[in-house]
Amino acid sequence: MNNLEKMRHSLSHVLAAAVRELYPNVKFGIGPAIDNGFYYDIDFGDIKISDSDLAKIEKKMHGIIARKLKLTKRTVSKSEALDWARDNKQDYKIELIEELPESEEISFYDMGDLFTDLCKGPHVDSLKDTGPFKLVRVAGAYWRGDEKRPMLTRIYGVAFATEEELSEYLQRQEEAKARDHRKLGKELELFCFSDLVGAGLPLFTPRGTALRELMANYSLSLRGREGFKKVWTPHITKTDLYKTSGHYAKFGDELFMVHSQVNGDDFAMKPMNCPHHTQIFASRPRTYREMPVRYMEATTDYRDEKTGELGGLSRVRSLTQDDSHVFCRKDQIKEEVARLVNIVKELYTTVGMQKLRARLSYRSDEDKYLGDKKLWNMAQSQIKQAAIDNDLEYFEQEGEAAFYGPKIDFMAEDAIGREHQLATIQLDFVMPERFGLEFTNEKGEKERPVMIHHATLGSIERFLSVFIEHTGGWFPFWCAPEQVRIVTVNNKVSDYVADIAKVLDDIVLDKPLKYNELRYSVDDSADSLGKKIKRATEMKIPAIIVVGPKDASEKVVSIRLRDSEDKVKLTKLAKFLQELK
Amino acid sequence: MNNLEKMRHSLSHVLAAAVRELYPNVKFGIGPAIDNGFYYDIDFGDIKISDSDLAKIEKKMHGIIARKLKLTKRTVSKSEALDWARDNKQDYKIELIEELPESEEISFYDMGDLFTDLCKGPHVDSLKDTGPFKLVRVAGAYWRGDEKRPMLTRIYGVAFATEEELSEYLQRQEEAKARDHRKLGKELELFCFSDLVGAGLPLFTPRGTALRELMANYSLSLRGREGFKKVWTPHITKTDLYKTSGHYAKFGDELFMVHSQVNGDDFAMKPMNCPHHTQIFASRPRTYREMPVRYMEATTDYRDEKTGELGGLSRVRSLTQDDSHVFCRKDQIKEEVARLVNIVKELYTTVGMQKLRARLSYRSDEDKYLGDKKLWNMAQSQIKQAAIDNDLEYFEQEGEAAFYGPKIDFMAEDAIGREHQLATIQLDFVMPERFGLEFTNEKGEKERPVMIHHATLGSIERFLSVFIEHTGGWFPFWCAPEQVRIVTVNNKVSDYVADIAKVLDDIVLDKPLKYNELRYSVDDSADSLGKKIKRATEMKIPAIIVVGPKDASEKVVSIRLRDSEDKVKLTKLAKFLQELK
Repeated sequence: MNNLEKMRHSLSHVLAAAVRELYPNVKFGIGPAIDNGFYYDIDFGDIKISDSDLAKIEKKMHGIIARKLKLTKRTVSKSEALDWARDNKQDYKIELIEELPESEEISFYDMGDLFTDLCKGPHVDSLKDTGPFKLVRVAGAYWRGDEKRPMLTRIYGVAFATEEELSEYLQRQEEAKARDHRKLGKELELFCFSDLVGAGLPLFTPRGTALRELMANYSLSLRGREGFKKVWTPHITKTDLYKTSGHYAKFGDELFMVHSQVNGDDFAMKPMNCPHHTQIFASRPRTYREMPVRYMEATTDYRDEKTGELGGLSRVRSLTQDDSHVFCRKDQIKEEVARLVNIVKELYTTVGMQKLRARLSYRSDEDKYLGDKKLWNMAQSQIKQAAIDNDLEYFEQEGEAAFYGPKIDFMAEDAIGREHQLATIQLDFVMPERFGLEFTNEKGEKERPVMIHHATLGSIERFLSVFIEHTGGWFPFWCAPEQVRIVTVNNKVSDYVADIAKVLDDIVLDKPLKYNELRYSVDDSADSLGKKIKRATEMKIPAIIVVGPKDASEKVVSIRLRDSEDKVKLTKLAKFLQELK
Repeated sequence: MNNLEKMRHSLSHVLAAAVRELYPNVKFGIGPAIDNGFYYDIDFGDIKISDSDLAKIEKKMHGIIARKLKLTKRTVSKSEALDWARDNKQDYKIELIEELPESEEISFYDMGDLFTDLCKGPHVDSLKDTGPFKLVRVAGAYWRGDEKRPMLTRIYGVAFATEEELSEYLQRQEEAKARDHRKLGKELELFCFSDLVGAGLPLFTPRGTALRELMANYSLSLRGREGFKKVWTPHITKTDLYKTSGHYAKFGDELFMVHSQVNGDDFAMKPMNCPHHTQIFASRPRTYREMPVRYMEATTDYRDEKTGELGGLSRVRSLTQDDSHVFCRKDQIKEEVARLVNIVKELYTTVGMQKLRARLSYRSDEDKYLGDKKLWNMAQSQIKQAAIDNDLEYFEQEGEAAFYGPKIDFMAEDAIGREHQLATIQLDFVMPERFGLEFTNEKGEKERPVMIHHATLGSIERFLSVFIEHTGGWFPFWCAPEQVRIVTVNNKVSDYVADIAKVLDDIVLDKPLKYNELRYSVDDSADSLGKKIKRATEMKIPAIIVVGPKDASEKVVSIRLRDSEDKVKLTKLAKFLQELK
């Protein structure tokens, strides 16, 4: 445990001590250090605690810290521990202690003579070393995560080594809140949910559908340029497919099972597409001449996520992957991986997230990986070489591989400095083996191909959750659902609006995606100009064309962009818009 | 029963008589007239009958017919009927007779003194009136369609009033066999099936995917031009959605049920998209200004068809609809329906199936329809008026409506004269009511919209099954998966092949679908020219460019089309290909 973690852990004890001073009859659950801070789960009995109570608790915490108490460890026997917990009516602690094996060392931490807690530690030596913190939020949490046990109150705090880091973090949180894609998704009319359809199953409105199609088409167009061909596979399959692939044994209980009432057959919804794609490869004999065979498909997979874990587009049950699979010879791996790395770099540069780190995800020593260890080592060294050859900023991590092979996971940094794992490139020697895939090589012999799995966006839904927050809803011109809105000053300009519309109708952007017809609308309602501009601005439309009689008589077009205003001749309008970023 | 049906029915008796002469111990099931002919289900005991036995049986039938026996009806009591069946050891007839109510008149038909059968009739008076026929096929059929009962042998015959009609029918059957989309789908590498994935779940290869995308994109582009916007909805939903829509009560047991192992929730796979689309409409308040709201989506629905009914793409479990829904005011129905009728006409003209008949599908007096009868009558008269106003050749049919409203079903005739039901336009006053949809009208009041359901292709899979057979795999140039193949005479023409390829790379067709980039490949393998041309012809590639040294030196391009050969200057190649049909 590093020092920051110790500081955070100690703060959770301070939190508990402060709470007990304010509410003497509370019972404590557990209080660990977590990313960015700490929490404590507490049973307040009949008392309801809300965010408005946090200031008071925080003040009490500062008071305790000011006393600079020592934190000292003390080892006790199980029966001593139980005596303590019973004396203090700490039912949850009793449960925890009772479950400890007799042989285990049990330790307490004393905070001066103020507060004692059952704890493994470690902690900072003195409360003067706890550093800056802030209580941020109250939430409900079932004791031991079990919905049949009591609901405790979880108080979250954030804590950092320095005031600067803390305030930077809090500011980023504020920014993130303003950019929350769930909020923007509603405001910008991108997607919606329906109680009748269910949680984790977003429905995309026309604007959101335009956005997701543009992103998916752009992503696939980069691979189309490199020889990938689209295929189409159904969303369900007999479970036999996953029994063969190995997914069933690994993830069987996370599958959505589909039951046929008519035939009594059992199917599963596909949670990934690789096994389906192997069946297209295997549908006829293959020769070395056509290798690599490259398939791609933007298709929706279904994963049975816990309801409590669903949120906006970040985690959904219906996730659309911009998926692809290369079937190639071993000596083609290097070139194929390089091809994919370049696509990843190009796409993330286009969307303004060019700062990428590559995590080289290797197997660990656990048993959960399929396939020959020698092949794994070979594949892992190829992955590493690819990272070096393609100038990737990378780090290595064991235990993050897929069950069938090692992978490169790309972490992209967004506009407010958060990293998101999105694109992935995965080597796979296992599935070709399990499905008995083969091609005839130059010598006329049967040879097993290698598979390379890749998604550039990852899941389109998750990518959009990141992209919406990254842009704050101010999408780049090429992919804004509505790129231009014409608003009229009065009702005498309709002829000129028609002239402008004629120009807009003919505009087709060709970068970064070809054949991208301009999307615009006209607001010639009787509302005031101010109201119409406000409405367009709230929808974060990149270019608002305000048309008044003077524009009409001078044949010019007044354009409001996000940060500037422009006036261009009607004859230059197309060129002007085509150059917008 | 018309005369042709009588002839066919009598032929089934002749078939039975002939079989009994050849195989005295057979037991008869039933033998009705059907479309195009007749069949008889017969238990042959241990004897195996195959298509090769048909000539012998047919010969015996002709012998019987030559005797010009009379067919006469005779009424008997139930006990007389049972005596006859027992005497003749006709177990299946016994079962049938036993189930007849005492009050029912039981009749026998005597064919002279040769053969007697339990039968309601009617029949032709004499065997001299039976007309031309042919036995075509032997199949297995469970007694009474129940897989737990014995499997009988079904012998199929076809029969028509004249020799011309019979031979025309048989010829069309031959043609249909050669065009069988299952056979062409394999030969042209359009789609495949996998035992691991399951029956009725086709996987589309790159060629088939290109074809299905082109057709779907074309179909949606016609509606896009008319103000329809794409939306996106997930493939599953809580069953609550269908309980609200009324689908659950109607079709609950045909749904693929989806079970969440993690949360224990129950979902269903969507068998249609209208309920999902209502939820997007309902996601925010609507005003009269934005009506009609028009959504479209090419999305895959899942229906739990019986395994035995699945065949190629004609009937699948995964069917992709080019679906759309208009939400409009009542006074907008006429214009919206006209808009859709025109789209149907345009699409089917493009694909060469311009001969369309419209079936106006009305409710019957059964109880299975939802909604107010007055609304139904109004909707049905609107449907009829639309057919008249839009010059449709139409016929009316009761009992074919959807449960929520009447519809126009379009029957398109293919190249060999078969009619297929594909496009549909459906009026719906029920679902807006059940989902409580509303918009604010000009007076500031809440008003209920009408829904208009429409699919132009119907299901893309079924459309393709028709389209492949309609074209015999010789797809129109614009939608051929591979439009051009360059084959080389020898290996000295690679520079010129590159010149040609450069021209092809820049070709983008814009009719009937915009932005349609040319799809071509190069076969410069070491195989003989003859072999390369044969290979390209077998794949039914519309334009084969044969490149030899002479072409290179003269800068001309030799093009083989399906029925002709052409030589054009390289500079004219793009124009030449753009004009191909």
